[in-house]
Amino acid sequence: MIYLDNSATTLKKPAAVVEAVTAALTQLGNSGRGVHEDSLKSSEVIFQARQLLCRLVNGEQARQIVFTSGATESLNLAIEGMHGSGDHVITTVLEHNSVLRPLYRLQAEKGLELTIVPADRQGQLDYAAMAGAIQENTKSIIVTHASNVTGNVVDLQTIRDICQTHGLYLIVDASQSAGILPIDVQELRIDVLCFTGHKSLYGPQGTGGLYVRPGLKLRPLKVGGSGIDTFNPVHPTNFPTALEAGTLNGHGIAGLSAGVEYLLSEGLEAIYQKTRSLLELFYHEAVQIEDLIVYGDFSAKVRCPILSINLGERDSAEVSDLLAYEYGIATRPGGHCAPLMHKALGTEEQGVVRFSLSSFTTEFEIMEAIHALQKIRQKG
Amino acid sequence: MIYLDNSATTLKKPAAVVEAVTAALTQLGNSGRGVHEDSLKSSEVIFQARQLLCRLVNGEQARQIVFTSGATESLNLAIEGMHGSGDHVITTVLEHNSVLRPLYRLQAEKGLELTIVPADRQGQLDYAAMAGAIQENTKSIIVTHASNVTGNVVDLQTIRDICQTHGLYLIVDASQSAGILPIDVQELRIDVLCFTGHKSLYGPQGTGGLYVRPGLKLRPLKVGGSGIDTFNPVHPTNFPTALEAGTLNGHGIAGLSAGVEYLLSEGLEAIYQKTRSLLELFYHEAVQIEDLIVYGDFSAKVRCPILSINLGERDSAEVSDLLAYEYGIATRPGGHCAPLMHKALGTEEQGVVRFSLSSFTTEFEIMEAIHALQKIRQKG
Repeated sequence: MIYLDNSATTLKKPAAVVEAVTAALTQLGNSGRGVHEDSLKSSEVIFQARQLLCRLVNGEQARQIVFTSGATESLNLAIEGMHGSGDHVITTVLEHNSVLRPLYRLQAEKGLELTIVPADRQGQLDYAAMAGAIQENTKSIIVTHASNVTGNVVDLQTIRDICQTHGLYLIVDASQSAGILPIDVQELRIDVLCFTGHKSLYGPQGTGGLYVRPGLKLRPLKVGGSGIDTFNPVHPTNFPTALEAGTLNGHGIAGLSAGVEYLLSEGLEAIYQKTRSLLELFYHEAVQIEDLIVYGDFSAKVRCPILSINLGERDSAEVSDLLAYEYGIATRPGGHCAPLMHKALGTEEQGVVRFSLSSFTTEFEIMEAIHALQKIRQKG
Repeated sequence: MIYLDNSATTLKKPAAVVEAVTAALTQLGNSGRGVHEDSLKSSEVIFQARQLLCRLVNGEQARQIVFTSGATESLNLAIEGMHGSGDHVITTVLEHNSVLRPLYRLQAEKGLELTIVPADRQGQLDYAAMAGAIQENTKSIIVTHASNVTGNVVDLQTIRDICQTHGLYLIVDASQSAGILPIDVQELRIDVLCFTGHKSLYGPQGTGGLYVRPGLKLRPLKVGGSGIDTFNPVHPTNFPTALEAGTLNGHGIAGLSAGVEYLLSEGLEAIYQKTRSLLELFYHEAVQIEDLIVYGDFSAKVRCPILSINLGERDSAEVSDLLAYEYGIATRPGGHCAPLMHKALGTEEQGVVRFSLSSFTTEFEIMEAIHALQKIRQKG
């Protein structure tokens, strides 16, 4: 199987990730729930992961990195934990359902006001519309760093400036970008950065988290055991405990830590250049294929390693099935949980076939994908 | 290290659990997010885990088993998802902060009415007080199946009858009992059963879930990507998707599945009898030690493999430290996230030293613990 569905989850992990999880499963106690060495070992592993992630995004302090079960939890926490009745939020058509559905729910349940910024047919955001949408009660801009459908990267500098001028919170969904693009939360003045562990950070499923700017308070999604301050009826408010009730996924976090270590030792830039070259190759070969439509803006200087296509009018699920069952190539068809992006691209019915690369993707695999697409096209 | 902190997390997992996670980390795609074999494999692993857990608790259908990151998430989901202004809830002094704090929060934020049923100095619940606490607006009884401090088991049959008579929901925290005691959700008419994966189910951290009685609706804690029904602005309402937004912890669930398989193949009864004998041995030796106080009711027919003690007036943390650093025995001291239980036992200041056993605990380890306690007592 040639695996080109890395934007869903990276299947191939660095060996160190698998080793770290295996070791943790035989060595870790419950972090913060005892003083014996197994429990302390767990706290140490988790703290190291915080430090590495803090370094990766240039956070101020490791304790501002909060662990969750993944980006969906992080986004629900940020969205529900910071917004309510009377607030206005600006988001975009690029967003995943993990942003849209929590916002729609707040709209329905609490009367949150919502503006969704449009994009053009290439999937590029209308920044003037974003700036123009600001109202008296606008509280935040919530935006993905990169589209999971097109791989287009959002101009966070411009959005930062809009937020700064108008005193808005900036909440960024880095599900598709963390581990691929450099992110400097201080330079970009990001208030909350939500990330998942199991995609381009090469960690296990069930890991992820958020960076929260020091001083910012969020209503926790969950409260409960904290290992400290047991007799306080209110969940502790110090970070990261404030947003981390219950036993953390120490086994998974050990793997996530190894994934981030891999990225830092290989270098984000080196990995980016490698996948970018493969993507360019893929794109230049793909556009030669008759009737093949590529989505997204490939003239952009920076993009994520995603190539989404259709073959004429053919249903994306049919093409993806052929790729899987006749050519052994794993891709993802359909709607990709980003309904408004498909409306903007005009692919609501057809979906798109998404190829997504990782640091382990090879030129051979890309050429196999090209050959498969050529053959599918020829057979009609 | 002799590990006797299994009520915090089981450190020693069956070999099959470690193998399953390791295999999953190299084989699993993203469940429900593609049609290629890696993605299908993930769906299969997760479905199998649902089936095994459904069998373990005698649920009606596998889809009524919902996965979360652990019992804390399950409890927050059940508590916040079913209760609000105007409701009255009955709970007990046995509860963990993962029950109490979400309830206190609803009390503070939404005016939930709360009654907390007392226990005696042995930690046994006052069932008459529970029945007497019912009001017109009582919606649910939320109760732990077993105390994480004393190991006392709650009489769920009696509570079931109270719930049935008065038409109340029964929500059970099985953090300390799932995998140790038989639980039949149908016979006990349990509406929501919350469990964690990393304790006596022998799964990895970051796993857990809930059983939800068919037909019962809960407001989800998180909404977002569902892999299906992408263009619906509302998160799907069919089970288990209704309560499972985002990518599941497939890697962890693979391990949890292996843990439950281990329990089903060894047999709950056989494991119970083994740990029960060791606990009896431990108890009978421990009570010989001068000044040693045992908490909980050891005359009860059924109990969890927990022995909580103090040595005279000595601080539980000091005793636990000595056990760890001088005798290599891992226990847990202090408040155990169950503040009201400590008030009932009169150990609010002192805490208790908790020894907790697993299916892998040996007689040798118990005798070592006894010898260590004897020596600590002698040295004064």
